Amino acid sequence: MEYYRRKVARWERHMHLHSEAAALSNITVTEHGVTFDPEASWLKFHSGISSYALYSRNDPAIPKLLKDMHRMSVISADYTQDEKALKGACDCTQVVKPSGHHLKLALKMQNFGKAMFKPMRQQRDEETPEDFFYFVDLQRHNAEIAAFHLDRILDFRRVPPVAGRLVNVSGEVLLVTQNEDLRAVFFTSPANNTCFFAKCLYVCKTEYAVCGGPDLLEGSLSAYLPSLSMAPRISISNPWTRSYTFSGREEWEVNPFYCDTVKQQYPYNSGNRLLNIIDMSIFDFLTSNMDRHHYEIFTKFGDDGFLLHLDNARGFGKHSQDEMSILAPLSQCCMIKRSTLVRLQLLARPEFRLSDVMRESLKGDSLQPVLTEPHLSALDRRLQKVLRAVQRCVRRLGEEDVITKDFVKSTGTPQINTEMRKDR
Amino acid sequence: MEYYRRKVARWERHMHLHSEAAALSNITVTEHGVTFDPEASWLKFHSGISSYALYSRNDPAIPKLLKDMHRMSVISADYTQDEKALKGACDCTQVVKPSGHHLKLALKMQNFGKAMFKPMRQQRDEETPEDFFYFVDLQRHNAEIAAFHLDRILDFRRVPPVAGRLVNVSGEVLLVTQNEDLRAVFFTSPANNTCFFAKCLYVCKTEYAVCGGPDLLEGSLSAYLPSLSMAPRISISNPWTRSYTFSGREEWEVNPFYCDTVKQQYPYNSGNRLLNIIDMSIFDFLTSNMDRHHYEIFTKFGDDGFLLHLDNARGFGKHSQDEMSILAPLSQCCMIKRSTLVRLQLLARPEFRLSDVMRESLKGDSLQPVLTEPHLSALDRRLQKVLRAVQRCVRRLGEEDVITKDFVKSTGTPQINTEMRKDR
Repeated sequence: MEYYRRKVARWERHMHLHSEAAALSNITVTEHGVTFDPEASWLKFHSGISSYALYSRNDPAIPKLLKDMHRMSVISADYTQDEKALKGACDCTQVVKPSGHHLKLALKMQNFGKAMFKPMRQQRDEETPEDFFYFVDLQRHNAEIAAFHLDRILDFRRVPPVAGRLVNVSGEVLLVTQNEDLRAVFFTSPANNTCFFAKCLYVCKTEYAVCGGPDLLEGSLSAYLPSLSMAPRISISNPWTRSYTFSGREEWEVNPFYCDTVKQQYPYNSGNRLLNIIDMSIFDFLTSNMDRHHYEIFTKFGDDGFLLHLDNARGFGKHSQDEMSILAPLSQCCMIKRSTLVRLQLLARPEFRLSDVMRESLKGDSLQPVLTEPHLSALDRRLQKVLRAVQRCVRRLGEEDVITKDFVKSTGTPQINTEMRKDR
Repeated sequence: MEYYRRKVARWERHMHLHSEAAALSNITVTEHGVTFDPEASWLKFHSGISSYALYSRNDPAIPKLLKDMHRMSVISADYTQDEKALKGACDCTQVVKPSGHHLKLALKMQNFGKAMFKPMRQQRDEETPEDFFYFVDLQRHNAEIAAFHLDRILDFRRVPPVAGRLVNVSGEVLLVTQNEDLRAVFFTSPANNTCFFAKCLYVCKTEYAVCGGPDLLEGSLSAYLPSLSMAPRISISNPWTRSYTFSGREEWEVNPFYCDTVKQQYPYNSGNRLLNIIDMSIFDFLTSNMDRHHYEIFTKFGDDGFLLHLDNARGFGKHSQDEMSILAPLSQCCMIKRSTLVRLQLLARPEFRLSDVMRESLKGDSLQPVLTEPHLSALDRRLQKVLRAVQRCVRRLGEEDVITKDFVKSTGTPQINTEMRKDR
């Protein structure tokens, strides 16, 4: 809180200097007052994060945060940290993997909340071409929104809140950014729309630009997590990661006993971690997101803390296809948390059908319909496939071995365990 | 002819060595016998080029050449010369301008004829997005085919013959190329199709790849002109070129009297050159090709030789829009060849309607329908606009000044003139 108060004061001093400098160099910058609000929804969200989930079931801060991201004035815009880390170097070997097309931006709201903006790149009814590799697939703003809703419906609560918004790319990005590089990638298209494009692909790739109409552009706004200094997280390679090359194959793709190896390795040899990975694979299978090369955890919750399901924009690319390989952790390890299974079974019942619950939930977003009907039906079809995979395991190994109680005590590293108990 | 015979002999020696080398390094190369055919259609086409046009109205070599390009075995494939000139350097400032996305290839036929292959990048019913600049627009294989037919119908005969073909990218490119760089850009897509992509955009841009289904890929094959050593050509900047930047404007876009300046400059101050430029602008307006930054002429025909209308793949992008600025040479100079006008008037008559003649002509191509109906109707609509532009000029300046006899004698540089006469 004190930190927040200091930041606001620093911002006000900084803006004062900046607008003097801007006036001298003849740049138009819209100035917005900032408000210090100890009741700000993003602060409540941050302080509500527990070792169980990112937010509790009925936390009133979440709908408020969604509303704020949808409506509140944007006071500044900038590249995200990972974009800045590239420093315009644009090494293709780096770019191809996680960073997509670098059109995401960090927006700061009037109450100092921050959100990551991913602009619309694809129409709702477009499907990913069948010849595309998952790692060059576009990022979809609506997938980001839908993934948040799905995660909440599955009762995981491991995706930070995401709201859709029609962003005015002139007024809410170009005119409020203090980053000259960002200002430099804006241009007016032949159809007189305001557009901007990826920094590092500058000269070649104006066809990668996104354009407003003439200024308004759909996008997803994902709430930022607490800063890494306040709540450190680590990024861990997914044991079921894919090969990010044309013809490479990972061990899990060729070895049906791969899970036995994983089960013997720390931190998958005890505690919840492997069950959490399986939860994540079910989530990714439902959205059809093949791009889960890493996952993140908060270090302070220790090894049994939940996995963050960040970066879901590559889901919902093809409604007509179910990529069974995403379910490999479930089908190879033949384990699932009882709580997850009960939830899935509930959502398979006609009165709580997943597609209906999703449709209802997504109505709360301003960019509805967020998903087309074929994508909603795909959720029901995939859910059945998850349940069938569990049934096959049960038939083979018995319920006892397959359906596992949650919160099995970790016996991994005692030190982190203590720390974790302290935090609870 | 002697040159051709020597080339065939050299090829046979070379292939012998190459297949020995390939066998050693375990590469599969399909070997095709070559035939020395003094009656080959491409040879007839080359020798039929005159100072009036690329081919005469009823030259039987042209339909034969179209058939050969459509059917004949491909014995080798390689990058084109301008692609090779880049040497993989991939300087974006160079790439953005003329070279498109570098997916064109040079194919050599069994009778040693050569054709430039441009693969399909876009479905027939897709329109260029309105926010695209013309210089990042995709190249369309069907535009290349349609432009050849249109040019022939307009009786210009300044576009080298183009035929559509379903190319087997495995058998007719990958297995016959001796270029290792080209072999290296081939891969198999997730949908098990054979794909290849632009060399210089290697790592980042697999989404720029084109894919067969699983091996067959539509494309246009344009007949090569005689080599530059046999028939030298020069490339001259179009006085009505566009600015290849986001916001730049060229003089002709802001100065309504621009043509007066051009008319005073060599080689536009006498002879046919300016009238030829106006013909070209009418042709480009009909196809809606905004990308005419340069034109080429054969040096041996002198200043009054016809202009080659090469590279027409950026036409036919939007059927719903008529880009009047392409007609600037006509509307600003208010001149047109009588022969051109008579032809246009004929094609505006219901019994010879341009769209009908085009539809009929395009039926001869194997990739029919080459153009969708909206593109065909656009031709009729645009033709009316050309005729109206001429009418406006006539009302203002009188028929005498506007409608010009062809083949006005050039009074420019006597030396080239002499040479030209000698050649005729």
